[in-house]
Amino acid sequence: MVKREVALEEAYRLLTPGMVVLIASQRDGRNNVMTASWQMPVSKEPPLVAVAIAKKHLTAEYIQATGAFTVNVPGFSLLPKVHFCGTISGRKVKDKLEEAGLTPVPGKKVPVPLIKECLAGLECRVWNTYDGGDHYIFVGEVVRAEASEAFDGFWRLKDNQDEYPVHHLGGPHYYLPGPSVSVLPKDGGFEVTPLKP
Amino acid sequence: MVKREVALEEAYRLLTPGMVVLIASQRDGRNNVMTASWQMPVSKEPPLVAVAIAKKHLTAEYIQATGAFTVNVPGFSLLPKVHFCGTISGRKVKDKLEEAGLTPVPGKKVPVPLIKECLAGLECRVWNTYDGGDHYIFVGEVVRAEASEAFDGFWRLKDNQDEYPVHHLGGPHYYLPGPSVSVLPKDGGFEVTPLKP
Repeated sequence: MVKREVALEEAYRLLTPGMVVLIASQRDGRNNVMTASWQMPVSKEPPLVAVAIAKKHLTAEYIQATGAFTVNVPGFSLLPKVHFCGTISGRKVKDKLEEAGLTPVPGKKVPVPLIKECLAGLECRVWNTYDGGDHYIFVGEVVRAEASEAFDGFWRLKDNQDEYPVHHLGGPHYYLPGPSVSVLPKDGGFEVTPLKP
Repeated sequence: MVKREVALEEAYRLLTPGMVVLIASQRDGRNNVMTASWQMPVSKEPPLVAVAIAKKHLTAEYIQATGAFTVNVPGFSLLPKVHFCGTISGRKVKDKLEEAGLTPVPGKKVPVPLIKECLAGLECRVWNTYDGGDHYIFVGEVVRAEASEAFDGFWRLKDNQDEYPVHHLGGPHYYLPGPSVSVLPKDGGFEVTPLKP
């Protein structure tokens, strides 16, 4: 396969990140929310997830203040609101959740809201904070998680496209999950077949 | 939206991770490779990416020994080989790349191979290593990157499904990227339209 050199400043776009999430945070009773897709699971035991947040973002300040955040999974139907939350700073609006038309619901284990309209939410306590260049890597211990029926151990993605998570391609471009497949043993090798519902 | 509690040990599956990648590493002249999807970009300046690797994996040992790794992006057509690399330990085979039918190509900036058949490759020097519970978080500085024509600043995903990256749903289940959309300003709000080629 012929390959070209990629400029280092655009290398990050080679790694299509995890699903787009909304990170909610809180400080002195004031809620904030931002869109992020630089997130990943990190550990099963203890259950840890990591999210990279630009050091200059208000969300970084809020997470450091409270030691907690929530990770919320929006479905495709929320995409315009999600994009809004990713393109305006919480410093410029009084209440970004309200501006976006999203509803905060108090977390049960952390003093940070979950977002009612999202497909899933993870309540996280900061387990550690690491330097990540122009971002902080916040590693959160998941202390409570909830999900809609679309999740049954993993995202089944079978019925309603409005409930699909989305991935960020870069800029204003996103993609939805497409065909799901299973890779199953066959004849000493593996066979790729459509995922059975 | 009605939501149910999710057990903490399966909470990580709520966050569909980034695209599936092959992490290649090297120690004392011996190559290794593993499948991973717990990866994310972390920083633009400097260009950093993070990957979570189970502490017990041979790859963790190899990365610590060399201080370098490569992140390779396989296309859908490689999925059986990718799944193989994710389900067998490098401790159990003499040369996992060879067993998988993948071709190592020497890195140009790091003493670790790239994988010829992949759509893209990032050569990384370990920038920092962090504790991540049962995984290490290896943060790599991208010192060189290359990609096939399928990448033109971001993954266009327009022509050949064999060249699509894949995401991991859990177990033997994966999904391909589906419809791509753009979220563009309209009438003071946003409109979601199909991504134009």
